[in-house]
Amino acid sequence: MVAELIKTYQARVELALDQCLPVGDLHPGDLHQAMRYAVLGGGKRIRPVLVYLAGQAVGALPEVLDGPACAVEFIHAYSLIHDDLPAMDDDDLRHGQPTCHKTFGEALAILAGDALQALAFQTLGQDPAMTPDPAIRLRMLGILAQAAGSRGMVGGQAIDLAATGRELSLAELENMHIHKTGALIRASVLLGALSQPTTDPALLERLDRYAKCIGLAFQIRDDILDVVGDTATLGKPQGSDRVLNKPTYPALLGLEGAREHAQLLHQNALASLDAFGSEADPLRWIAAYIVERPS
Amino acid sequence: MVAELIKTYQARVELALDQCLPVGDLHPGDLHQAMRYAVLGGGKRIRPVLVYLAGQAVGALPEVLDGPACAVEFIHAYSLIHDDLPAMDDDDLRHGQPTCHKTFGEALAILAGDALQALAFQTLGQDPAMTPDPAIRLRMLGILAQAAGSRGMVGGQAIDLAATGRELSLAELENMHIHKTGALIRASVLLGALSQPTTDPALLERLDRYAKCIGLAFQIRDDILDVVGDTATLGKPQGSDRVLNKPTYPALLGLEGAREHAQLLHQNALASLDAFGSEADPLRWIAAYIVERPS
Repeated sequence: MVAELIKTYQARVELALDQCLPVGDLHPGDLHQAMRYAVLGGGKRIRPVLVYLAGQAVGALPEVLDGPACAVEFIHAYSLIHDDLPAMDDDDLRHGQPTCHKTFGEALAILAGDALQALAFQTLGQDPAMTPDPAIRLRMLGILAQAAGSRGMVGGQAIDLAATGRELSLAELENMHIHKTGALIRASVLLGALSQPTTDPALLERLDRYAKCIGLAFQIRDDILDVVGDTATLGKPQGSDRVLNKPTYPALLGLEGAREHAQLLHQNALASLDAFGSEADPLRWIAAYIVERPS
Repeated sequence: MVAELIKTYQARVELALDQCLPVGDLHPGDLHQAMRYAVLGGGKRIRPVLVYLAGQAVGALPEVLDGPACAVEFIHAYSLIHDDLPAMDDDDLRHGQPTCHKTFGEALAILAGDALQALAFQTLGQDPAMTPDPAIRLRMLGILAQAAGSRGMVGGQAIDLAATGRELSLAELENMHIHKTGALIRASVLLGALSQPTTDPALLERLDRYAKCIGLAFQIRDDILDVVGDTATLGKPQGSDRVLNKPTYPALLGLEGAREHAQLLHQNALASLDAFGSEADPLRWIAAYIVERPS
């Protein structure tokens, strides 16, 4: 039942992304095609789904959530394009398809990523269906910009760069992921929750704590899947973290230790939702999904 | 006298940029150092100066203009970092210094550009000194995002990519520059003018027309300088456009024809300011500077 709801939201954001992206024959066509290729080429849409579920937990309507859902996914999609570049992870496959630079060339891939970041902020600034309160929207924009920037996602990628081939402590590894994946997942939950302008700040605080826990759990599961998954399910070569000598949770804690760590975060995430009733059930469900997902 | 005023604003924005950028020892330090290197390494600061001058023309105080001035310069600086990358123009020098990727490596340079774009929007969203009207700030954010994105600056770079080595008509060349440089120059003038929330929409319209003219004139002068300037003054190898076989105004119109075209735009820019008194004198002065500047 919750799985069905999530599928509904996945389909909803797929449509919203398609409509929010410039059409492929709009000038300059090759840039817009590259942007559409990178965004619409698949993915679990976990961040936009979190926007919808957090919004639903505080009573926001789906219509006001489409803009924030697209915005967080545009940020995520741009980061994947740049992450896959030869100068970064040099990946050929993403969601089982050639990466953006493999299809469109490096220069256009860089630009498509840049344009998607701008589109994320443009969407929050201009989407007519979002909450009409400009102060709230401005706050959302600030949250997303901070989560995306040097003290958030991009900062995490820089920490990752500096860490490759080096031994990290558990604290350093967590710090990296709090920035790299955690920041945008937190922003997704907060943007959803803020879409209902009357949300009690205390509930916002609890949702933020929930988001911190599932953000980290998500990354631990990612690391585990890189060890136990297979290339077809992952859409990228299995074991690629190990090949690049990237620090991972299983490397530090062992596979079982990593699983326990993810379960502990799962429990903490659920505890953060104690103040909510059944309206937060989908958030509870997705917390479980995140620590058990097969890909 | 106006030249002195512009120097004052250049010094003002230099300080504002320095304060708005994360300090270099803030974690992750290498990323923040790369961002500071790219932004604080020189440049004429024409876009932020236009923010101050347009703001001054409508009676905005300098304090409310620092945020927008930094935001447009962050967008400009990030675009230069990415433009200089090996996959793009592959430039080794910028403002007479090694380009960001030459100093920090390609991966960190990509990330520094990405983080600067986020910082631009974060600044407009969160700077406490800016106009407190959230609706106006939201409008500014929308204008900057649109100017920076696929239908603005990044779109212009994609058109440029597709045009290298190909013959362009004058209309196609103008279209490229309207996006590539024009969009951000227009945004600079509009953000300055909007910082005084009571600005008459008709005046805003005239300032926008002024900005369109000087934006194009700026690019024509750039093309002319690439032919007649020398490497030391330009901070980049003279004739580099010709080497890359990039379409330019002098190539299409001849050197004299390009100069006349710039002068015509200069006259149109001045005519757009007819409704203004002496408060717009600095804008008149900078229009002349743009078509005659030595570098």
